[in-house]
Amino acid sequence: MPPNTDGTAGTGDRSVIAKLFTLLSAFSSARAALTLSEIAHRSGLAMTTVHRLVGELTERGVLERGSDRRYRVGLALFEIAALAPRGPGLREVALPYMEDLYEVTRENVQLGVRADEEVVFVERLAGRASVGVRTRIGGRFPMPPTGVGLVLLAHAPPEVRQRVLATPLHRYTSHTLTDPERLRRVLADVRRDGFAVSDRQVTSDALSVAAPVLDGSGAVVAALSVVLRFGSVRPSSLAPAVRMAARGISRALTSAPDSTGGPLSG
Amino acid sequence: MPPNTDGTAGTGDRSVIAKLFTLLSAFSSARAALTLSEIAHRSGLAMTTVHRLVGELTERGVLERGSDRRYRVGLALFEIAALAPRGPGLREVALPYMEDLYEVTRENVQLGVRADEEVVFVERLAGRASVGVRTRIGGRFPMPPTGVGLVLLAHAPPEVRQRVLATPLHRYTSHTLTDPERLRRVLADVRRDGFAVSDRQVTSDALSVAAPVLDGSGAVVAALSVVLRFGSVRPSSLAPAVRMAARGISRALTSAPDSTGGPLSG
Repeated sequence: MPPNTDGTAGTGDRSVIAKLFTLLSAFSSARAALTLSEIAHRSGLAMTTVHRLVGELTERGVLERGSDRRYRVGLALFEIAALAPRGPGLREVALPYMEDLYEVTRENVQLGVRADEEVVFVERLAGRASVGVRTRIGGRFPMPPTGVGLVLLAHAPPEVRQRVLATPLHRYTSHTLTDPERLRRVLADVRRDGFAVSDRQVTSDALSVAAPVLDGSGAVVAALSVVLRFGSVRPSSLAPAVRMAARGISRALTSAPDSTGGPLSG
Repeated sequence: MPPNTDGTAGTGDRSVIAKLFTLLSAFSSARAALTLSEIAHRSGLAMTTVHRLVGELTERGVLERGSDRRYRVGLALFEIAALAPRGPGLREVALPYMEDLYEVTRENVQLGVRADEEVVFVERLAGRASVGVRTRIGGRFPMPPTGVGLVLLAHAPPEVRQRVLATPLHRYTSHTLTDPERLRRVLADVRRDGFAVSDRQVTSDALSVAAPVLDGSGAVVAALSVVLRFGSVRPSSLAPAVRMAARGISRALTSAPDSTGGPLSG
């Protein structure tokens, strides 16, 4: 965005909106319920500012105050966010195919999209017997160690791939790929094979098999994966089912093109 | 909230936040992708204001610009909204029980919470063969005609129930209850029986069976329903399964008390 050039009113808006999102960033999955002073402490905003903003946000339902006097993210934000085409919109189109894949495999079925240089998980179906996973709906995760991320990274613009490969890669397990050259070859394989396998790269007992979801223009807009316990099934035997489900979602997106919002610019 | 009494700075914040939510309210499920001038037209905000706010919101990922030059609600809002305990937090706890209920019934399974005098649907699992429904995740609906809404209304604070009963009730089908006295008796039955049946009140081919979800304090924080095609199954035969699933969710909430954020004040 060009710098703001329309004087103090614009600068003021900018600062209020910055404060608003700074305030909201005080909430996390580990800290979902906060008192006023915890919000001030975690956001670094002045208590008077927090008091005023929280009051207005509560009135709008963006925050909700519990009987324990703590504030939580409210339903009003959920209602607006439900309109995000790359979030709930995509999920709505994908759900029947995800359910089929879940019924066939009985494993975690995950759907993710790329946000900057990370994956955001949009949906996850998990059975009670499925292996534990570290992902969370609405949560971010680095691309390289996950199956969904490998697919998204393989099909990301070259400059995104270069930035990710130029950043030191975190080692989650002894199986995590951290050598950029090796990762580059894996990504080429993903493009050639039409699916990705991440083998115990996030947790030492799980692997995932992922395939790309395309929109009507042929752009990769999401990735679908199954996460299963290492040793339970040969990953390559699951690839056809994952690819079938991903193709089903792609076909459904083509007939409902507004669902992903089209390829993002930039 | 008390009126803002701290002078112009606060008033300015208030007006910027009001503009922000006015701008976001231009987006709807029917109009999920808008140009700058459509946003201005639908929000009633000045084009210069829209241009400036949209620029900043796009930079933050709150809006996303597609290659078609239209803006859509972005993933950043989805990521924050994923922390809402009464939205995705509740859904996470409820999902395994909803999946069980879906597998047993093969019908739409819905989870809703009360927001003011309406239901907001938090989750819906729908099979390909399920009857069509008019609800949408993150969407609002009046309480009286839906099974989930009857449960939430039956257990709402008396003043909420009085306001809803004092408002003229929209007739969706010839079966919609619109007589407040009859509705009042139905709500008393819901409290006595522990479940609600809404018979063809929203669409003339569907009915729903709903049961309350309670938190650790015994407060009704959500309702769970199955929506099925009229004539396919006797509703009363499904009530035990719906109540079992709702009790399962209630028990899970009690061991994860932060998931609903506790009873709302007020």
